Amino acid sequence: MATSASNSDRKIVTGPAGYVLEDVPHFSDYIPNPPTYPNPLQDNAAYSVVKQYFVDEDDTVPQKIVVHPDSPRGTHFRRAGPRQRVYFDSDDVVACIVTCGGLCPGLNTVIREIVCGLSYMYGVKKILGIEGGYRGFYARNTIDLDLKTVNDIHKRGGTILGTSRGGHDTTKIVDSIQDRGINQVYIIGGDGSQKGAAVIFEEIRRRGLKVAVAGIPKTIDNDIPIIDRSFGFDTAVEEAQRAINAAHVEATSFENGIGLVKLMGRYSGFIAMYATLASRDVDCCLIPESPFFLEGKGGLFEFIGKRLKENGHMVIVIAEGAGQDLLAESNEQSTTLKDASGNKLLQDVGLWISQRIKDHFAKKMTLNLKYIDPTYMIRAVPSNASDNVCCTLLAQSAVHGVMAGYNGFTVGLVNGRHTYIPFYRITEKQNKVVITDRMWARLLSSTNQPSFMKHDDHHEPNHSGGEAGAMNW
Amino acid sequence: MATSASNSDRKIVTGPAGYVLEDVPHFSDYIPNPPTYPNPLQDNAAYSVVKQYFVDEDDTVPQKIVVHPDSPRGTHFRRAGPRQRVYFDSDDVVACIVTCGGLCPGLNTVIREIVCGLSYMYGVKKILGIEGGYRGFYARNTIDLDLKTVNDIHKRGGTILGTSRGGHDTTKIVDSIQDRGINQVYIIGGDGSQKGAAVIFEEIRRRGLKVAVAGIPKTIDNDIPIIDRSFGFDTAVEEAQRAINAAHVEATSFENGIGLVKLMGRYSGFIAMYATLASRDVDCCLIPESPFFLEGKGGLFEFIGKRLKENGHMVIVIAEGAGQDLLAESNEQSTTLKDASGNKLLQDVGLWISQRIKDHFAKKMTLNLKYIDPTYMIRAVPSNASDNVCCTLLAQSAVHGVMAGYNGFTVGLVNGRHTYIPFYRITEKQNKVVITDRMWARLLSSTNQPSFMKHDDHHEPNHSGGEAGAMNW
Amino acid sequence: MATSASNSDRKIVTGPAGYVLEDVPHFSDYIPNPPTYPNPLQDNAAYSVVKQYFVDEDDTVPQKIVVHPDSPRGTHFRRAGPRQRVYFDSDDVVACIVTCGGLCPGLNTVIREIVCGLSYMYGVKKILGIEGGYRGFYARNTIDLDLKTVNDIHKRGGTILGTSRGGHDTTKIVDSIQDRGINQVYIIGGDGSQKGAAVIFEEIRRRGLKVAVAGIPKTIDNDIPIIDRSFGFDTAVEEAQRAINAAHVEATSFENGIGLVKLMGRYSGFIAMYATLASRDVDCCLIPESPFFLEGKGGLFEFIGKRLKENGHMVIVIAEGAGQDLLAESNEQSTTLKDASGNKLLQDVGLWISQRIKDHFAKKMTLNLKYIDPTYMIRAVPSNASDNVCCTLLAQSAVHGVMAGYNGFTVGLVNGRHTYIPFYRITEKQNKVVITDRMWARLLSSTNQPSFMKHDDHHEPNHSGGEAGAMNW
Amino acid sequence: MATSASNSDRKIVTGPAGYVLEDVPHFSDYIPNPPTYPNPLQDNAAYSVVKQYFVDEDDTVPQKIVVHPDSPRGTHFRRAGPRQRVYFDSDDVVACIVTCGGLCPGLNTVIREIVCGLSYMYGVKKILGIEGGYRGFYARNTIDLDLKTVNDIHKRGGTILGTSRGGHDTTKIVDSIQDRGINQVYIIGGDGSQKGAAVIFEEIRRRGLKVAVAGIPKTIDNDIPIIDRSFGFDTAVEEAQRAINAAHVEATSFENGIGLVKLMGRYSGFIAMYATLASRDVDCCLIPESPFFLEGKGGLFEFIGKRLKENGHMVIVIAEGAGQDLLAESNEQSTTLKDASGNKLLQDVGLWISQRIKDHFAKKMTLNLKYIDPTYMIRAVPSNASDNVCCTLLAQSAVHGVMAGYNGFTVGLVNGRHTYIPFYRITEKQNKVVITDRMWARLLSSTNQPSFMKHDDHHEPNHSGGEAGAMNW
Repeated sequence: MATSASNSDRKIVTGPAGYVLEDVPHFSDYIPNPPTYPNPLQDNAAYSVVKQYFVDEDDTVPQKIVVHPDSPRGTHFRRAGPRQRVYFDSDDVVACIVTCGGLCPGLNTVIREIVCGLSYMYGVKKILGIEGGYRGFYARNTIDLDLKTVNDIHKRGGTILGTSRGGHDTTKIVDSIQDRGINQVYIIGGDGSQKGAAVIFEEIRRRGLKVAVAGIPKTIDNDIPIIDRSFGFDTAVEEAQRAINAAHVEATSFENGIGLVKLMGRYSGFIAMYATLASRDVDCCLIPESPFFLEGKGGLFEFIGKRLKENGHMVIVIAEGAGQDLLAESNEQSTTLKDASGNKLLQDVGLWISQRIKDHFAKKMTLNLKYIDPTYMIRAVPSNASDNVCCTLLAQSAVHGVMAGYNGFTVGLVNGRHTYIPFYRITEKQNKVVITDRMWARLLSSTNQPSFMKHDDHHEPNHSGGEAGAMNW
Repeated sequence: MATSASNSDRKIVTGPAGYVLEDVPHFSDYIPNPPTYPNPLQDNAAYSVVKQYFVDEDDTVPQKIVVHPDSPRGTHFRRAGPRQRVYFDSDDVVACIVTCGGLCPGLNTVIREIVCGLSYMYGVKKILGIEGGYRGFYARNTIDLDLKTVNDIHKRGGTILGTSRGGHDTTKIVDSIQDRGINQVYIIGGDGSQKGAAVIFEEIRRRGLKVAVAGIPKTIDNDIPIIDRSFGFDTAVEEAQRAINAAHVEATSFENGIGLVKLMGRYSGFIAMYATLASRDVDCCLIPESPFFLEGKGGLFEFIGKRLKENGHMVIVIAEGAGQDLLAESNEQSTTLKDASGNKLLQDVGLWISQRIKDHFAKKMTLNLKYIDPTYMIRAVPSNASDNVCCTLLAQSAVHGVMAGYNGFTVGLVNGRHTYIPFYRITEKQNKVVITDRMWARLLSSTNQPSFMKHDDHHEPNHSGGEAGAMNW
Repeated sequence: MATSASNSDRKIVTGPAGYVLEDVPHFSDYIPNPPTYPNPLQDNAAYSVVKQYFVDEDDTVPQKIVVHPDSPRGTHFRRAGPRQRVYFDSDDVVACIVTCGGLCPGLNTVIREIVCGLSYMYGVKKILGIEGGYRGFYARNTIDLDLKTVNDIHKRGGTILGTSRGGHDTTKIVDSIQDRGINQVYIIGGDGSQKGAAVIFEEIRRRGLKVAVAGIPKTIDNDIPIIDRSFGFDTAVEEAQRAINAAHVEATSFENGIGLVKLMGRYSGFIAMYATLASRDVDCCLIPESPFFLEGKGGLFEFIGKRLKENGHMVIVIAEGAGQDLLAESNEQSTTLKDASGNKLLQDVGLWISQRIKDHFAKKMTLNLKYIDPTYMIRAVPSNASDNVCCTLLAQSAVHGVMAGYNGFTVGLVNGRHTYIPFYRITEKQNKVVITDRMWARLLSSTNQPSFMKHDDHHEPNHSGGEAGAMNW
Repeated sequence: MATSASNSDRKIVTGPAGYVLEDVPHFSDYIPNPPTYPNPLQDNAAYSVVKQYFVDEDDTVPQKIVVHPDSPRGTHFRRAGPRQRVYFDSDDVVACIVTCGGLCPGLNTVIREIVCGLSYMYGVKKILGIEGGYRGFYARNTIDLDLKTVNDIHKRGGTILGTSRGGHDTTKIVDSIQDRGINQVYIIGGDGSQKGAAVIFEEIRRRGLKVAVAGIPKTIDNDIPIIDRSFGFDTAVEEAQRAINAAHVEATSFENGIGLVKLMGRYSGFIAMYATLASRDVDCCLIPESPFFLEGKGGLFEFIGKRLKENGHMVIVIAEGAGQDLLAESNEQSTTLKDASGNKLLQDVGLWISQRIKDHFAKKMTLNLKYIDPTYMIRAVPSNASDNVCCTLLAQSAVHGVMAGYNGFTVGLVNGRHTYIPFYRITEKQNKVVITDRMWARLLSSTNQPSFMKHDDHHEPNHSGGEAGAMNW
């Protein structure tokens, strides 16, 4: 087995038959002979029964699992879980947890389970909460977190630590980490925050500090690549059903009733797609990945007219990032609107498309269009049972990885197995709905909506085959 | 006991000690010697056990029940319920049901229970559904309703009959009633629809038709006077909690977080007030009845600034009709906005006040304001258990009243008892939150918000004492 | 107006036209010239707007409100609410709260709102929680309650104070009240606990202490007389729908499917009756007030056989206290069972009747009977919005009454108005479903079940006409 | 690549590096040169956009995906999905659907989506519902299923087709299939029903009929091997939270309060384990796979005593199949109980253990034990969003497989991918919680409960490493 690092940041291990392991950094990469200790779990009575508790160092999980008999083995990730030896003396650990970016169901469960995992499994006693996102490292005092503080928080939405966007100042943050004597940093955040985590890790490695940085990827939109699904996504899809149900009831109770629901998804339409598949009451689902146009043959207005004529009502689900090209175009044309203070309101694609639909049909028929934006009602709910389990296991995986000396990694489910993934793999691109793939075809089959493609559109598959996560069943 | 009709439409009966009965019309008022029949319920095995089933003709219910030892007895309404004799032969009945106006939880339960009541209790076989509101009388075919059709509809939101606003054309409607041979008309609708019902009844009486018209008042806002509460209100307040909870979570998770929830209530703030009282997480509740101003000492902005400084977050609930004076004023000033097509969007007080708050604090601090409009998600839910019982009894009361020959009346709960109320009493004014009364004081005590009154405001009690319904506990 | 006390405990005030006020005790009854103070609410900015905030001393609420023009005025209760003058200096108040008996949705809301009411409205600073029911007075330390402690408790089921049955030892309790310097005692509990409260009050009056005792009646069964409904009842009926829905699904998915749901109601069937009326999926509702028999013509088995033959499935709701006569009889016959340790299980009427039904049909057909007992799942939910408002107003009424010097009273809704009721009126009998009245007839009409009466049953109305509370609409 | 059939029923294909494909039967195995047709999806406008819609014939999915660089490739299953050519002319298809065994959330969604998939995707017009389980094939008439019939059924719990246990009579069933001209049979059922499906398929192959038999595995307990999770499981775990929450509230509101919840799981404890992991309020989780004992050192009673002493309350979750050895033993000893008619009740492990706990502590302390059995309330709920998507894809996979000529197979998620699995693989053993594996260790870590193992217990891993499904993350 040969190691080839194409890049100073990357640990690529290759094996027979095209086997590739994209490994994550480890203390031993830059700290000579770091001391190790037996894993305290070995003395835990509850675990004595479990024969297979510790993960074999060679365990890896393939990214691509739809295979042919002679397929090359492809990319693998390191399996998450506890190791026989750990790189921290529990008494020395000073861990901190920070939540960044927008709300997502399950944040409090992840916080809770990092605290519980560190406390119960490893006997860690010092855990700090960083308040209000990245800027909390340098702009605020920390708060102490213990089993009592976090006991009931998983039943509440939001994050008890508070959160914010931005505020990332690498030097100040790493200075603060050093000043406070923190040696384990758990960062729960989205795309941008994980990039921030990567930079913090680079600075820590540059300074040669024995400080572990682990990311728990958070995105209600499910737009982080590689991983099967992000925590909170399941809860969000569930909660979105309420809005779709309401839209359906409104639509069917009025003549030419249209229920229009905007769902989250700035760059990817997973919530819209899954909520549509789960509901079966939706006539049209518009997502950022699938361009559409309004007027003329094959356009949205034609389809709306047709569906209303057939059924008398319809439900449209639109992801917040859908049709941004049309919206931008529309804003350019209407210069007067740009000057008005109400301008920003029109950036909401739901309000914009509602108005466009009403305008279009104004002379033709009386529409009864009802626009529902459940975004904040979805984000703020506590996580459901499935996401609670998911968050628990993510938190435990992160804790095990950090204790085992891994560093600069993200935890994530890959094909149903918990793995450690290098930061660059989850930040280098976004996960998107592959509209040339089968899940989108299933949606089209469910809604019977047209493809809204003009003749000059040429759809090239926007992914390399088989790379999509497990949710592209 | 003497009868004095101050007005051809009104049947006022007076009695000793200031007793007044505001009675409802009856077939016998304008049809000489209408035939009567024994109530079929007398032969119903299930009722044989019930000794007190039939309502005594003299049973009435007082409107005002907070009394002094020597208070005059005041206004009473006729108690609803089955009578010993009925004015229809069940085989001759052709009933119809129509739903008008906006959605409200419980519409389908009322429809279902009129059908069940007519069928089970009185053996009526011919019941028609008028589709799409008043215009359905003349613009569409009717549909047949029976026990099977309506069996599960109470578990769905909306109305299976469809609904619409307007479309009231008295002549066409009464012609259609005659043409179709309909002799019982059940009208489920709000303020305007009940006025329509009154006009239909007048025309029917003018033509001397033996056709009964009964109204079941529908208003999710609870803005119909005299009655304790309207059906669906309880469900609406319950469902509004979700939005307030989400606002609370969003507000507490961000620095200077404000969660702003718009609730229904064009002219009256009952939903906002009760939702606030039920939640206890609200810092400020703004309703149409209680004027407020934004800037300067004692204004809303000052209060927001103060609350954010103290707590770091706040939740504001605003009824859709609150602050309309400010909004109108604001629209006049910004003439450019009036021309833009986005203009109408600004009529939404929630969007408008969100923008004003953001603008005001823009230079002072970073606000995180989240605006939630759950209106359609509330309107469209099925009614809860409490409203289901309420709808059932309203429907049964209407059926009993119609069978007993009463006509041109509305059914309603008065002090917890079902009564028949003349149309004019529920259409002549709207029920409003009495801000000089105790319930609003309870709310102020709960939110600790200021009264937002300028020095030159002089609040006169806007009701005559004790007239308020039972919800002003 | 003349006062006549038929009994040392009772304050009966009579007036013209048969007016009777059943008044509650007051400090001034047994303490000569107690000092009074202006109500602190007068200085509260929020209340300055409210003109009609203070309750007129003469305000009373009639118990019976279905009246004839010349009816005698009948019994009235004192209207609850704040008075101009109070009998406590807020700084001197030491209040305590205790919860007794079984769980009921809303307990925590009542606790919270007594604390908030005392703190916000009257500036009281010392409020103690008695833990674990009556025995907490003498067997445990108290805990301090303040606005922070109770802030979120209304979102949780159960009682943060803990509760227990029994433990009432008047002398020890009153000694403890004296020792701890408590001068306001709020007792949240059922029938038995209110009797206990009455005895504590008697002892306090005997000792001449200036200690107020107020009861907030708690009964999930709604079996307390006089009052319209008890808090938590609405939530319980709502939650019971889940069980009935499940029973309906199970019944309709299997051949000869029977879904049997046991609901709370040891002596009164209100929950069973309202849950049945709200659901409309129930074929048979059995309650303690309506005797039934199993075998032979007109019996339950015959009805089950008939309904299964017609529909293939049925749903039965049984209150826990229904058919206790049959069950007692059955236990006497099967003496062997009495000795077995499994004996107690058979006391559960749901298990017992399930077995009887299965045995009866064993040779005739294959039944698929599913028995559901949702009791603890209903009791333990947090109160819904409607009950939250209800609990808030009850708590505030209790606080106002105590501050105003009333003593030895219970707060309760009478015909939609909050009143003060003497203890004896709510403990001298239980509220029961009046099966000769209209609500039960409505239920019979809804389920179409037979009356299950044998020929020799003679049903006398088990109440004096018109006395029933507002829930007997 | 070589094919080796160790057994006439099995199609085993081997490849390089230890690659094994456990393939499913196909029409072409026993029907010479069956005609094929182009897949109608090729002409479907909605699919024209999708480049990768049809599944490559060589696509397979590995069972074991935690691998080492040089692991043998191991067992694979055929990937599900549409194929380029189909073996049915849509006009000739007569499909039927049957549901067997107990209820499970999602049954109606599977029925709906088989109907929708056949209709929308393949243009099939004749679909029959077999009512009441297997015996419906010969004992009842069929019902017609079309898009209208099934439109809203996914919002209801249970199965619109009805279900039953047993009734499997191979000859009668296959005769009926032939008589009715059915050529596609979709069987939704558990372990036993899938065995039945295998036997039906064998008989069909024996008779040489061109009839496809596909199984959709149904088990609320998640006890079917190979597959990641069964439909309805997620909903069941979610719904179980209500019962656990109630148990927690009851336990914490009383002194020495114990909330005991029985959950489904006759032979496997997945629901209990996941519900426990999701809730975090559980102190002890007892499942069939993990033996326990009651008395003495290290036993359950000791643990209960300890936990009550520490916390004053506890929540116990027990799977219905846990402790059956103890229960059997207990029944043997108490011979008198066996004779009593109450005997069967004691088979309920929840009632039994409640009594044992009460008896044990009777003399030591006053327990407040509340027993909750939410089984039927869980089974009967409609499926949640996640399960709705899951059911939809299972149904579509089954339809694609049948149209593509595969036969005698089950559809199932394997490592997040839909596959076709031979019947024998899912019926030959049950999926069980592996108590020597990490998920159970996570649970032990969460509850901190002891292992309840006696010194003479020797736990051998009860599975071959890595075989467990994806839920053993």
